[in-house]
Amino acid sequence: MMKQRSFCTSLWQCYFEYSTPKILVIRSFKVGTLNRFTQALVIAYIIGYVCVLKKGYQDTDTVLSSVTTKVKGIALTNTSDLGLRIWDVADYVIPPQEENSFFVLTNLIITLNQTQSRCPESNSTGFYCTSDRDCRVGLRDTRGNGVQTGKCVNYSADVKTCEVWAWCPLEMDAEPPVPPMLGDAENFTVLIKNSIRYPKFNFNKRNILPHVNTSYLEHCVFNRITDPDCPIFRLKDMVTEAEEDFQTMAVHGGVMGVQISWECNLDMPSSWCVPKYTFRRLDNKDPVNNVAPGYNFRFAKYYKNGDNQETRTLIKGFGIRFDVMVFGQAGKFNIVPTLVNIGAGLALLGLVSLIRWNGAKKQIPHMHSPLDAHEQEQKTDSSRWFPPYCLMSYCVPGDLHTG
Amino acid sequence: MMKQRSFCTSLWQCYFEYSTPKILVIRSFKVGTLNRFTQALVIAYIIGYVCVLKKGYQDTDTVLSSVTTKVKGIALTNTSDLGLRIWDVADYVIPPQEENSFFVLTNLIITLNQTQSRCPESNSTGFYCTSDRDCRVGLRDTRGNGVQTGKCVNYSADVKTCEVWAWCPLEMDAEPPVPPMLGDAENFTVLIKNSIRYPKFNFNKRNILPHVNTSYLEHCVFNRITDPDCPIFRLKDMVTEAEEDFQTMAVHGGVMGVQISWECNLDMPSSWCVPKYTFRRLDNKDPVNNVAPGYNFRFAKYYKNGDNQETRTLIKGFGIRFDVMVFGQAGKFNIVPTLVNIGAGLALLGLVSLIRWNGAKKQIPHMHSPLDAHEQEQKTDSSRWFPPYCLMSYCVPGDLHTG
Amino acid sequence: MMKQRSFCTSLWQCYFEYSTPKILVIRSFKVGTLNRFTQALVIAYIIGYVCVLKKGYQDTDTVLSSVTTKVKGIALTNTSDLGLRIWDVADYVIPPQEENSFFVLTNLIITLNQTQSRCPESNSTGFYCTSDRDCRVGLRDTRGNGVQTGKCVNYSADVKTCEVWAWCPLEMDAEPPVPPMLGDAENFTVLIKNSIRYPKFNFNKRNILPHVNTSYLEHCVFNRITDPDCPIFRLKDMVTEAEEDFQTMAVHGGVMGVQISWECNLDMPSSWCVPKYTFRRLDNKDPVNNVAPGYNFRFAKYYKNGDNQETRTLIKGFGIRFDVMVFGQAGKFNIVPTLVNIGAGLALLGLVSLIRWNGAKKQIPHMHSPLDAHEQEQKTDSSRWFPPYCLMSYCVPGDLHTG
Repeated sequence: MMKQRSFCTSLWQCYFEYSTPKILVIRSFKVGTLNRFTQALVIAYIIGYVCVLKKGYQDTDTVLSSVTTKVKGIALTNTSDLGLRIWDVADYVIPPQEENSFFVLTNLIITLNQTQSRCPESNSTGFYCTSDRDCRVGLRDTRGNGVQTGKCVNYSADVKTCEVWAWCPLEMDAEPPVPPMLGDAENFTVLIKNSIRYPKFNFNKRNILPHVNTSYLEHCVFNRITDPDCPIFRLKDMVTEAEEDFQTMAVHGGVMGVQISWECNLDMPSSWCVPKYTFRRLDNKDPVNNVAPGYNFRFAKYYKNGDNQETRTLIKGFGIRFDVMVFGQAGKFNIVPTLVNIGAGLALLGLVSLIRWNGAKKQIPHMHSPLDAHEQEQKTDSSRWFPPYCLMSYCVPGDLHTG
Repeated sequence: MMKQRSFCTSLWQCYFEYSTPKILVIRSFKVGTLNRFTQALVIAYIIGYVCVLKKGYQDTDTVLSSVTTKVKGIALTNTSDLGLRIWDVADYVIPPQEENSFFVLTNLIITLNQTQSRCPESNSTGFYCTSDRDCRVGLRDTRGNGVQTGKCVNYSADVKTCEVWAWCPLEMDAEPPVPPMLGDAENFTVLIKNSIRYPKFNFNKRNILPHVNTSYLEHCVFNRITDPDCPIFRLKDMVTEAEEDFQTMAVHGGVMGVQISWECNLDMPSSWCVPKYTFRRLDNKDPVNNVAPGYNFRFAKYYKNGDNQETRTLIKGFGIRFDVMVFGQAGKFNIVPTLVNIGAGLALLGLVSLIRWNGAKKQIPHMHSPLDAHEQEQKTDSSRWFPPYCLMSYCVPGDLHTG
Repeated sequence: MMKQRSFCTSLWQCYFEYSTPKILVIRSFKVGTLNRFTQALVIAYIIGYVCVLKKGYQDTDTVLSSVTTKVKGIALTNTSDLGLRIWDVADYVIPPQEENSFFVLTNLIITLNQTQSRCPESNSTGFYCTSDRDCRVGLRDTRGNGVQTGKCVNYSADVKTCEVWAWCPLEMDAEPPVPPMLGDAENFTVLIKNSIRYPKFNFNKRNILPHVNTSYLEHCVFNRITDPDCPIFRLKDMVTEAEEDFQTMAVHGGVMGVQISWECNLDMPSSWCVPKYTFRRLDNKDPVNNVAPGYNFRFAKYYKNGDNQETRTLIKGFGIRFDVMVFGQAGKFNIVPTLVNIGAGLALLGLVSLIRWNGAKKQIPHMHSPLDAHEQEQKTDSSRWFPPYCLMSYCVPGDLHTG
């Protein structure tokens, strides 16, 4: 008769109760092997993957970084517009300072001595006309260069376009020069100073390593084999490592990524914590889809002539923008993640026992493991126990060893 | 008598042992339904949420992105200071290039022909005086415009202020013009070129999609219905989508966010991986707390006059800064997260059985499920088993079906 | 005899089955205490750590932020080159606007009236010569200032260097002035406007708090004790809080980080959500490794003289770049993470029972807990049950209480 009992006659009794499932120990070659194999897999996962590979015993922190850059180099050009001209860093780095990137001019289309006045619209904008009626006063089309005055004037001997109020003379809408005007830029060098910090571990370091002194810094250039610690990079080398040709890229410009990676294991000496540099072209140079290639922008220099009239020099500058991206993670031994991962691993081992094996389906009705006298005696009793070889509810009995 | 047995008489025997809890199978309508319902919930969670919604079978990667922008457009102003003047991209984008943002001038207060000289301090700074004793030589107050010379001079017919050595004439501290001077800026367009890469999957793409050719790019403007693939955006459209009025925002300036989202499922064709654009006003335009609204900064153009004396034009520029923010995540099928999630799901199913149901409290002392002869015979034996219907320690017996 | 039974004679019967492990309830002081202690640890972990400390009942979101800055202040210099000169914000903030940072010039080396012409190379570059044969036509060394013409000319009475085509006169390669020229910069103030948004919770806020009005904003300066809500910071105070001396840092320049932290609990009133400001020097000022200290860059102002010849003023500017970094996380109660964490906690409690205690090893062969008559009667039966006091496979029997 089943009795309804209250097992907590007093809270005191309840406090001291401990519920545990009844455990059967089955001795079987096949099942035991499967069981140990699974446990070995779990332990190998914990030790191999969690501890060794993923360093689960470590606490981690993400890098905080500050970057400053400084380009050096001279370029020489000789054109009909400008004559013989040298370009130094104040001329070709625009703007002169940025937070995590720097731009180097490599090619340009220059329009000198522009003043606010009237001139015929450029023929590339499509504003052809035959008479004044074809032009609209005040029209400011985004493809245009100025505001239409409403008059139709001669652009050239054969062509008439609408007159505009604009910075005249207009820029000639042409392709950029090949070879690039500032092709000398490939020999420019950039000093990249990067300070990093892992705040959780109060760890600071610079990419100018302790053994680098001023005289070395005045002459070295980064080379993966001979000078891996020199923080001065030649622009051509960076572009070449990104599997690009500098002179080709310099015609229309582009965007380069300078990736500095600081993966540090702070359980090791701090001198092992060094940056790794990689270079990649960030803008997509798709040979098939070559619409709007490269990188360019327009800027101007403003002057006042003797009559206090403002003039400007318009420059459509093509160049390479280098984006410096710093990332990294540091790890250091900490008792908390160690215990958490060990605990999770033990829980995982515990869950293995909840899996009920179907491995011995073929072994019915006899098992091969020897039973001692005590077990034989219990065999009749064990017949009422649920065979452990089950997949969901389809089950077959097996030899059981209980005690 | 309880016997103390060692179950590991030899390590070999120990190796082949497999411990499993004894399982009771209870056949009961109510409990079985509760059990299957819970299992169905867990399976629905695994399949529906983990697999379908969260795509747990996929490995993920975060986007690496590079952005370049190019604004086009002409604005016309006609003021007493400057006369008739057109403004093109070299005039209103300051600075001419930035990494992930661009600024467009929409309004300004201009002070021409400033030179380093002496003039009365502006009356808005509060440096009134009646005699030289009220002024301090060398005082450089942050609210002031220059360094005080110690003299008290006439600011106007009625008012005297301290004289300063400064860029004179001083800027008139006035509210910016309404309507905004460069209100034409609403029709400017910006070409945003965005190249993204998912390094883990070696996947590159541009927001200039493969089917977009040069002639389309010369004329299209982004429109969510007619031209969703055009990467050229009208400034007014972006501001309107952010539920702002361009002309109102242009008076004091502001900050707009252009969000480009690349959520890609790389198990699908790559043509399905397209960017989604959203626009938001980032600076807080709080109608209640309207202190220091908008966005402005001062810059100057420097000239030298015929006497080699430096003059400058000071511009307090108000405008809209557009910050381009690119984010996204890609997923691709990978065997490792698939197995991990399946394993976690099975573990969750396994944990379901640890929950002991109180569902059948009302069913004492008889169950409704039929018992066959074998079970009846065992009923007396089963009375010594722990009834499964428990919540914590309060338990009632139930019908048990064992085998 | 073991019978092979199929427990799913019909799917309907299978549906209503519920498998549960047989549970033994052991009443023992030692084991019960260990058990309750472990459960208490788990519950304390769930309530204390997961709920209270880590706020596991909350959904979280990362901050979206936009920053604008505005510097104010006047500096005065008096040098032989420039004479008496004041510097205002358009003169010392370069470039005039940036996305998340601002640069303030604190020291400079100025070279006036440069034109493109020939002059002897600077002696610091090392291009000494005795005759024309020591100089190479067209050599553009990165350490040089121009392109060599091939001639050897007098640099000074004693020294001859190679002639170069460059912006002449060349910059004197000297150390920056001490004390810094724009040392007045320490009294400059910067208004930092920061708007943040937690998109998931549709929560917006500015760092200009609701109670701050225009008149307060015109006069206040941030002070941790008297004015913690004022968003205007004196440069000197920021540098001092970072444990640096402004005048020392201003000589060679540097990089400062302004960290704005928005950790908000949105279950609390929104007025509790306020920013916290901290200041740190980001570039590494290592007294031992003092190679390439500080932060400087070159920029130029271009002019045209009366003969329409371009001249420029080259400035090697040293200064402090302030990088504004905004981060934060908001939490708000949400039913989903609450249920997930409660569920995970209950699962953890359930896993506790899988641990089999070795605590009672010493208690063989008798237990101390009283058994009532029913238990005594069952003792012979229970002798066939697996004793719960086991570590791995080494086990000892214990008192069992079953029912």
